[in-house]
Amino acid sequence: MPEPRGNTALHDTEHLSATQLHASATIVDGLQISNWDRATLQELRAGGISGVNATCAVWEGPADTLKAIGDWYQLAAKNPDLVTLAKTGDQVRQAKLDGRIAVLLGFQNTSPFGDDFKLVEVFHQLGVKIAQLTYNIQNLVGGSCYEPEDSGLTRFGRTIVSEMNRVGMLIDLSHVGNRTSLDAVEASVAPVAITHSNPTWFVENPRNKPDEVIRAVTENGGVLGCCLYPLVIGGKKATLEGFCQMIARLVDELGPDRVGLGSDCTRNWDQDFVGWLRNGRWQPEGETKASWPEWPEWFVGPEDFPRLTDGLAKVGLDETTIRGVLGENWLRLFDDVFPGRTIR
Amino acid sequence: MPEPRGNTALHDTEHLSATQLHASATIVDGLQISNWDRATLQELRAGGISGVNATCAVWEGPADTLKAIGDWYQLAAKNPDLVTLAKTGDQVRQAKLDGRIAVLLGFQNTSPFGDDFKLVEVFHQLGVKIAQLTYNIQNLVGGSCYEPEDSGLTRFGRTIVSEMNRVGMLIDLSHVGNRTSLDAVEASVAPVAITHSNPTWFVENPRNKPDEVIRAVTENGGVLGCCLYPLVIGGKKATLEGFCQMIARLVDELGPDRVGLGSDCTRNWDQDFVGWLRNGRWQPEGETKASWPEWPEWFVGPEDFPRLTDGLAKVGLDETTIRGVLGENWLRLFDDVFPGRTIR
Repeated sequence: MPEPRGNTALHDTEHLSATQLHASATIVDGLQISNWDRATLQELRAGGISGVNATCAVWEGPADTLKAIGDWYQLAAKNPDLVTLAKTGDQVRQAKLDGRIAVLLGFQNTSPFGDDFKLVEVFHQLGVKIAQLTYNIQNLVGGSCYEPEDSGLTRFGRTIVSEMNRVGMLIDLSHVGNRTSLDAVEASVAPVAITHSNPTWFVENPRNKPDEVIRAVTENGGVLGCCLYPLVIGGKKATLEGFCQMIARLVDELGPDRVGLGSDCTRNWDQDFVGWLRNGRWQPEGETKASWPEWPEWFVGPEDFPRLTDGLAKVGLDETTIRGVLGENWLRLFDDVFPGRTIR
Repeated sequence: MPEPRGNTALHDTEHLSATQLHASATIVDGLQISNWDRATLQELRAGGISGVNATCAVWEGPADTLKAIGDWYQLAAKNPDLVTLAKTGDQVRQAKLDGRIAVLLGFQNTSPFGDDFKLVEVFHQLGVKIAQLTYNIQNLVGGSCYEPEDSGLTRFGRTIVSEMNRVGMLIDLSHVGNRTSLDAVEASVAPVAITHSNPTWFVENPRNKPDEVIRAVTENGGVLGCCLYPLVIGGKKATLEGFCQMIARLVDELGPDRVGLGSDCTRNWDQDFVGWLRNGRWQPEGETKASWPEWPEWFVGPEDFPRLTDGLAKVGLDETTIRGVLGENWLRLFDDVFPGRTIR
């Protein structure tokens, strides 16, 4: 049966099927923090993902981050059929054509820069294209979403934002405190991102974002990556339909170009790693040992990305919008930010 | 001529002369940040100083701080007639008897702990007895006096305060923001210090302290070390009399046990070091290269400590009070804090 043309909703099956759309889309995941190996990368390929912001530092300082990047170079060298380290949106697009995964190295903290603004350019040279300003505690740059008080962006933070703008490293605010986030949007001459959070109106949680922060980011050309981590969707009982309705509402409110996905997949780790994320070295382990949350049945890992496309079609989003959410919106942001800016 | 006894003012010359008092007092300098070698240590002996909080980290992280401590071990091993590394008030008192300088290793930042609370005990084991919570920028522990906004003591900061209390490391608030300082006094179960600052009523400057902070520190058993760094006394034109009158007023307001000295001597450095203190690695060097300030003629280094004793006598302080300011108040604080606390 020939498919009629037109910008109608996909669930009408008058256009591409969701499966066809998924297969043809360039899909970018705004953040994963997995314990990477060939099998974990193959999950991404099974899910149809062509580009991913892969976290290579959360609490690490400069030296440990170098080791993590070295590990990535090794993994990429040993799996050239499967993975390529990318520095541009076009390299992600090419990876789609080649059937490979384009990995953008990313930080979830500015701890790899230590107290040295010059390390922004150094790590950028090594391939780090995205960095979150703070992880779960206050640092030299600003306040975290989990800190009771948020100082706002510090003087060092302004130096870091300026350097990231200059070299073309995307600023990520996902775990950053709201005040520091608003300061960063104002200080940055390039658009910034929230790679993996949802609105607080969806689930009230420190890791989710109030409208004020989302609007500041998206009105300045940035993208919000909707997140599937159980904590920020309301746990295992969250529904695919509810998640996709959240995205549909965001598309309505912010426009079709401002919304993406950032799954926050945490594959292939043992239980100790979640304790490391929780406590780092900054506090003793509590009475209750940290453990991984349970994911909803409809999304347990990158292989479930096709279900998201199906869900987005079912809530009535059109093909162009779905392509935007699945990856095109990230790619346009990469095209804008990664070349860098001239800073006086 | 026999000297009459009694608690009369020294300028009446009815008691010990200022020179005799200086020679017999155990003198402790609350902070020096010099480029230490034998000649620099000899300046302290010439000034009659028996104990000093010697800064061995300002911006350094763990690894560089280990090197700095290693340098101190070498210097002490090569100059046993002149210097001993001390961990108690009694070791300072013994150094006085031996004619040596007792060095208490100190930090002007918590950067040597990195993000790891366990390093408090590690560095304490290496001999570090005093640590300032922040230097000139916000860090993981709290806000600096130079930061436009002060978050207060962070959750990591509370862990650090608790560990310092437990192992017996004196908390120093000199460069710390006021809000973080007040939080630290409240969080600490041991007295804390301001090793090298003056009141803002003496000179209005971010490095000096408002009454609220000074009172919080001293009413909880802590000591304020009055500072001679040009910035905090009003520059080269400041007078010895004015400085000593400030101390006399503090003695009146806070009691004779709560005031000490912290010269902030910066001997034997070249001009580049002041740029390092100013900019660290957190901001590019500005248009104007940083340079050392000019010290007042009456105090250019540790050799001028006898002039302080003379000046304190001239403003009418009694012998016991002067001995307290010169060193006994620091020693009592060390006796109180250095054994550590039992923390549940």
